[in-house]
Amino acid sequence: MVVLETIRESADVKKLNIEQLNLLSKEIRQEILQVVSVNGGHLASNLGVVELTVALHAFLNLPQDEIVWDVGHQCYAHKLLTGRRDEFTTLRTYKGLSGFPKPHESPADAYVAGHSSTSISVAVGIAQAAKLQHIKKRVYAVIGDGALSGGMVWEAMNHGGDLKTPFTVILNDNEMSIAENVGAMSLYLTRLRTDKRYRRLKDRVTQFLLSKKKLGHTFYRGLEHLRDAVKYFLVRGVLFEEMGFVYLGPVDGHDIAELLKTLKMAARIEKPVLIHVITQKGRGYAPAEQNPTAFHGVGSFNLTTGEIRPKGRTYTECFSDKLCELAATDQRIVAVTAAMPHGTGLEKFRLQFPERFYDVGIAEQHMVTFSAALALRGMRPVAAVYSTFLQRAYDQLMQDVCLAEAPLVLAVDRAGVVGEDGETHQGLFDIAMLRAMPNMTLLAPRDALTLPPMLEYALALGRPVALRYPRGEAARLASYTPQPLMQGKGEVLAEPAGAQIGLLALGDMVQTALQIAAMLAKRGIPAAVADLRFAKPLDDDLIVDFAGKYGRLLTLEDGIAAGGVGEGIALLLQTRGVKADLMTAAFPDEFVAQGKPAQIFSKYHMTAETLLPQIMRRWFKEINL
Amino acid sequence: MVVLETIRESADVKKLNIEQLNLLSKEIRQEILQVVSVNGGHLASNLGVVELTVALHAFLNLPQDEIVWDVGHQCYAHKLLTGRRDEFTTLRTYKGLSGFPKPHESPADAYVAGHSSTSISVAVGIAQAAKLQHIKKRVYAVIGDGALSGGMVWEAMNHGGDLKTPFTVILNDNEMSIAENVGAMSLYLTRLRTDKRYRRLKDRVTQFLLSKKKLGHTFYRGLEHLRDAVKYFLVRGVLFEEMGFVYLGPVDGHDIAELLKTLKMAARIEKPVLIHVITQKGRGYAPAEQNPTAFHGVGSFNLTTGEIRPKGRTYTECFSDKLCELAATDQRIVAVTAAMPHGTGLEKFRLQFPERFYDVGIAEQHMVTFSAALALRGMRPVAAVYSTFLQRAYDQLMQDVCLAEAPLVLAVDRAGVVGEDGETHQGLFDIAMLRAMPNMTLLAPRDALTLPPMLEYALALGRPVALRYPRGEAARLASYTPQPLMQGKGEVLAEPAGAQIGLLALGDMVQTALQIAAMLAKRGIPAAVADLRFAKPLDDDLIVDFAGKYGRLLTLEDGIAAGGVGEGIALLLQTRGVKADLMTAAFPDEFVAQGKPAQIFSKYHMTAETLLPQIMRRWFKEINL
Repeated sequence: MVVLETIRESADVKKLNIEQLNLLSKEIRQEILQVVSVNGGHLASNLGVVELTVALHAFLNLPQDEIVWDVGHQCYAHKLLTGRRDEFTTLRTYKGLSGFPKPHESPADAYVAGHSSTSISVAVGIAQAAKLQHIKKRVYAVIGDGALSGGMVWEAMNHGGDLKTPFTVILNDNEMSIAENVGAMSLYLTRLRTDKRYRRLKDRVTQFLLSKKKLGHTFYRGLEHLRDAVKYFLVRGVLFEEMGFVYLGPVDGHDIAELLKTLKMAARIEKPVLIHVITQKGRGYAPAEQNPTAFHGVGSFNLTTGEIRPKGRTYTECFSDKLCELAATDQRIVAVTAAMPHGTGLEKFRLQFPERFYDVGIAEQHMVTFSAALALRGMRPVAAVYSTFLQRAYDQLMQDVCLAEAPLVLAVDRAGVVGEDGETHQGLFDIAMLRAMPNMTLLAPRDALTLPPMLEYALALGRPVALRYPRGEAARLASYTPQPLMQGKGEVLAEPAGAQIGLLALGDMVQTALQIAAMLAKRGIPAAVADLRFAKPLDDDLIVDFAGKYGRLLTLEDGIAAGGVGEGIALLLQTRGVKADLMTAAFPDEFVAQGKPAQIFSKYHMTAETLLPQIMRRWFKEINL
Repeated sequence: MVVLETIRESADVKKLNIEQLNLLSKEIRQEILQVVSVNGGHLASNLGVVELTVALHAFLNLPQDEIVWDVGHQCYAHKLLTGRRDEFTTLRTYKGLSGFPKPHESPADAYVAGHSSTSISVAVGIAQAAKLQHIKKRVYAVIGDGALSGGMVWEAMNHGGDLKTPFTVILNDNEMSIAENVGAMSLYLTRLRTDKRYRRLKDRVTQFLLSKKKLGHTFYRGLEHLRDAVKYFLVRGVLFEEMGFVYLGPVDGHDIAELLKTLKMAARIEKPVLIHVITQKGRGYAPAEQNPTAFHGVGSFNLTTGEIRPKGRTYTECFSDKLCELAATDQRIVAVTAAMPHGTGLEKFRLQFPERFYDVGIAEQHMVTFSAALALRGMRPVAAVYSTFLQRAYDQLMQDVCLAEAPLVLAVDRAGVVGEDGETHQGLFDIAMLRAMPNMTLLAPRDALTLPPMLEYALALGRPVALRYPRGEAARLASYTPQPLMQGKGEVLAEPAGAQIGLLALGDMVQTALQIAAMLAKRGIPAAVADLRFAKPLDDDLIVDFAGKYGRLLTLEDGIAAGGVGEGIALLLQTRGVKADLMTAAFPDEFVAQGKPAQIFSKYHMTAETLLPQIMRRWFKEINL
C-alpha cells in the first residue's frame, strides 16, 4: 500500500500523477477486498467505482466541493481517501464505520444515503443553497444506471434542468442495478453505449464548442443554436439534453486520464451537465466480475476462491418455495419485484414462470400501483420488497391498494432488524405504516413452519394484505403445529395452569416470548404465550381475555413503538375498560444503528435475557432472580 | 340538452355524427357549469376535456375498453356519459356523486383516482392483466402535462415502454397543472407544441407508415428501420420515443374529428403509444379561460359574472402572511411548493421574494429532499403541502429529513377533514405518519392566533418540524392569549376548581374541547382543558398530571386513531403506571367519504354535540343530560 499509505485526506490525492493514481486505485481495490471478505458488504459496486472516485478526489476540492453518492453503497474508496483508512477494518460492524455515507462520520460525506435515486434532488438543493449564499462550490451527484429508474430522478432532473444552476450528474453506468437492469431507460443507455459513430461525432462537436480555454457565457450562448442543429443529428443523448442537461460521454470509467479530461470539460459548462461513465461492476476481482449480482451485497467470503459461506434456510427461501408451489397450480399468481429478484427470493419464480414475473426496476411506487391494477383485474400479484424500501410507496399503498381494495399480497422481507446495513435499512417502520391504513391486513409468521400457510392464506384473502418477515434464518418451532388461520385471530401457544402473566408476541418475537416463558417457568412463574399472527386487525378478544385472566401483559414486536401493536393494545384495553398492567417491548423513538442483529436486540433490551430482569422488577420483585 | 337527453350509456355516444358530437360537447359544458357553480368543484380542467371525453366515448367500447383518468378531477363529462346524469346535481355533496372516478359508483370508472401521476402504472397493470388472461381490451391513460412531472410517470413509462404491450397514453397538454407549469418537461412540451414544421412532417411520416388499412405486425417491423432513420430528423418527440412509446401529435383537443382520426391511428399500432393532445383549460367559459388557476378547484360562484364568493380568513392566509413577514428580515427563509403556490398560500411569497421561491412541479418526493438539502446547507426552507399529498414523500421524510436531521419546516395544509373532495383528499394520516418518525416535531395551532408564533418557533427550532392546520377558516379564540412555546409542552387553557375530567386536544379540536367544557359546566361538571400543541413529542408531564388529578381523560384529534395521539397517550399511561380512564376521539379505521366538514364530524361523533352524550354515558350516568 505504497501510495494509499500517504493519503491522509482528499487533498493528498491531488498531488499524485496519473501513474500514481492508477497504483492508488489498485491498492484501494486490495484494501476493499480484504475488509469486505471478512466483514461482508457491497463489493461489486465498490470495485466498479474505484478509478471514478480517485479521479473525483484528484479533481475536486473536498469538502468545499461536494460529492453526493446515490444509494451510497459505492462509497468505500471515498472513505479510504477521506481520513478513514485506519477505521476501515471496522466497516459495517457494531459502532464501526458505516457502509454508507454519513455526515456524522466525516464532513466529506455530503448526505445520508441508503435508499436509491435521491442524489440529484440533494445535489440540486446543495447547488441552490450555494447560489443563494453566493458560495462558489461544485456539486456532483454520482448515480448508478439502476437508480435512474426511480421516479425521484425524473422529478429532480425536471426541476434541476429548468433551474439551470450548474451542477454535475455522473451517471455510473455499469449495466446493472442489483440484478440486471430492466426498463426502457436501460435499453436507451445501451444504445448510447454502443453507438460508436455517434460517440465520436458527439465528442468532436463538444470539444469544438469547448475548445477555448476560458469560454465566455455569451460565446457559448451564441453557439447554442449551431449546437442545437448539430444535436439533432447526434440524437442519442437528446433525452437528457431535452431535460436541460448537457450530455457528455460515454467515458471509460476505469481510465483516470479520460475521466479527468471530461471532469475538466464539464466544469467549464455553466449549466447542468450529465457525464455518462461506463464502469464494470466487480472490476478487478474475477469472481465478482463474473457474478456481480452475488457480490452486490455479500456476507463474508473466501477471498481466494470467491466462495460465499452458505446460510441456513431463510424466511426468504420459505417464501420463495411456497410461492412457486402455489403458482404451479394457480395461473393467476404473478410475482413483482423492484430490482430485487435475488434478495426477495423471486429469482426462482422468474425461472419457473417467466411470463408471470415482472421486474419493474428500482420503482417501488410503480411496483405497488401496477400490482394493484393487476390484482383488480383478476390476477393474484405478490409484490416482494424489503420493508425499508416499501416506505417509498406509502401513498400508493394507501390510495391505490387500500382505498381501491386491491387484493394485492405484499411480501415484506427484511422486516425488523436487518443488522449491518444500519439506519437506512432497518425494517422497523412497516408495522406503524401499515396499521394506519384502512382495509389492510398485516400478518407475520413466527417461524419457517408458519410462513407457508400464511402466504397461502394471504393469496386467498381477496383483500389488501402484507406478510412481514425478517432477514436471515427462520427457526422451526416444531413443538407448535401451526393452527389454521382465521382473519384477525391469534394463536395461543401455551396457557399453563395458574399463569400469572400473558405474553403477546408478533412474528419472530414469538421465539423470544417462548424463551421468556421458559425462564419464568424455571423461577416458578407460569406464563401464557400467544402468537398474535395479525398485527392488523388485532385479536381484540384474545388480548382482552389474556388481560382479564392474567392482569399482566407483555407485548413483543420488532418495530418502532409509535404506532405499533403495543400502542394499539394499550388503547384497546382503555377502550374496553379492562384494568390490566401492560408492558411493551418495541424499539424506541430513534434510528437504530448498524451491528449484528443480536447486538442490536441486546442494546435495546429486546432479548429474553434483557427483558427478564425488567419483568421481574416490575411484577415479581418478591421472587429472587 | 337535446343530445345529452338521449345519452343513457356510453354506447349511445357512438351513434352520433360529428355535428351531434359537437352539440353534445356544448351541452355537457353547460351542464357542468350549472352544477359546479352551485356545488363547487374542478371547473377549468373539466371544461378542457369535454371534446376529448366525447371522442373517447365515441371511439371506445366501455367498460370493456378502459379509460384511466389521472388525478381524476377531469371526469365530469365522463360521468355524464355513463349513466350518472340524473345524480349529477349531487356532485361532491354528502352521499352524492364523487368528484373523482370511483369504481364503486360505476364500472365505467376504471380506478380510484385523486392523487396525481398514477394512471400510467394503472394502465400498464390493466393491459398486462388482459394480456395474461388473453382478453382483448384497449386501455387509455389520460394524463395532464402537470402530472407528468410526478416520478411515478417515469417509473411507469420505463416499465411500460419496455414491456411493449400496447396501451395508449393520452397526454392532455393544457400548459398548466394547477398553477402554471414549471420544469424542463414543460419547456420540452412547449417546443413540441410550437414547432409546426416538425408537426407537419411527423404527421406525414406517421400517416405514410400507417396508410395500409390492416397493417401487419411484420410489415410494421420491417418499416421500423426506415422510421427510425426518419425519426432522428424529426427529433422532437424523441424523448417519449426513446422510452418505448410511439409519439403521435400534437392534436387539437377540441377538434373531435381530428381526435377520432388519431385514436383510430393509435389503435392500429401494436406498441405503447403516446398521443399529445392540446387542450385549453376552462374552455368555453370566459372567466375560467382567463383565470384557469382560480377556477381549478372552486367553491360555488356566480355563473354570470364568474365572481367567486369570498371566504373568511383561513389558516392558509395566516400562514402566508406570517411567512412573508418573517422572510422580510430573515434572508435564509426559502419557500417550496409542489405545484400548489395558490392553494398553499405561497403565491404571496413568490411575488415578494421570487428569488427564494421554488415550485418543483407535482413532485413531492423531490420537494422534500431538495428542501432538506437546502436546510442542511444553511437555508431555512418552508415546504408547504397538503397533508394528503405529503404521503407521497413518506420515505424522503424518514430518510432525507429525519435521519439526516434536516431543519426543514413542513407547512402541512388541509390537515384533518377536507370535505367535498372526499376519501382521496382527507388529511387524516399525517399525525400517524409523522409520529412514527424519529427526530420529528409535529405542531398544530388551535386558531388564527396560535399559528404565527408556531411558524416562528418552527423556523427557529433547527430540527425537522411539521406544522399541521386544516382547510378553511381559522377561528380567533381571543380569550386565550397564546403562551410562549416550549419544545414538547402543551398549554393549559382551563383548570376550574373541582374539575372532574381533563380534555386534551390537538389543533382545531381544541375549539371542540372548549365547547364540551362549556356544555359540561352547564351541567355542573367542571372540566379542565389543555391544548396539546405538540403531537410529537407529547407533553408527558401534562398528560400524567391531568390523568392523576382528574382520573378521566378525553383526547381529541382530527386524524386516524391507529398511530394517533390517543394511542400514544394510552401507552404512556400504561408505561407510567397511571390509573386513569381514557376516552379518545379520533377517526376510525376506514376511509372518510365526502361531505361538508360539519357533516363528516357529526357522522363520526367528533363534534361537541355528539361527544357530550358519550361522555355523560361513560362517566356521569347519574347526572341528567
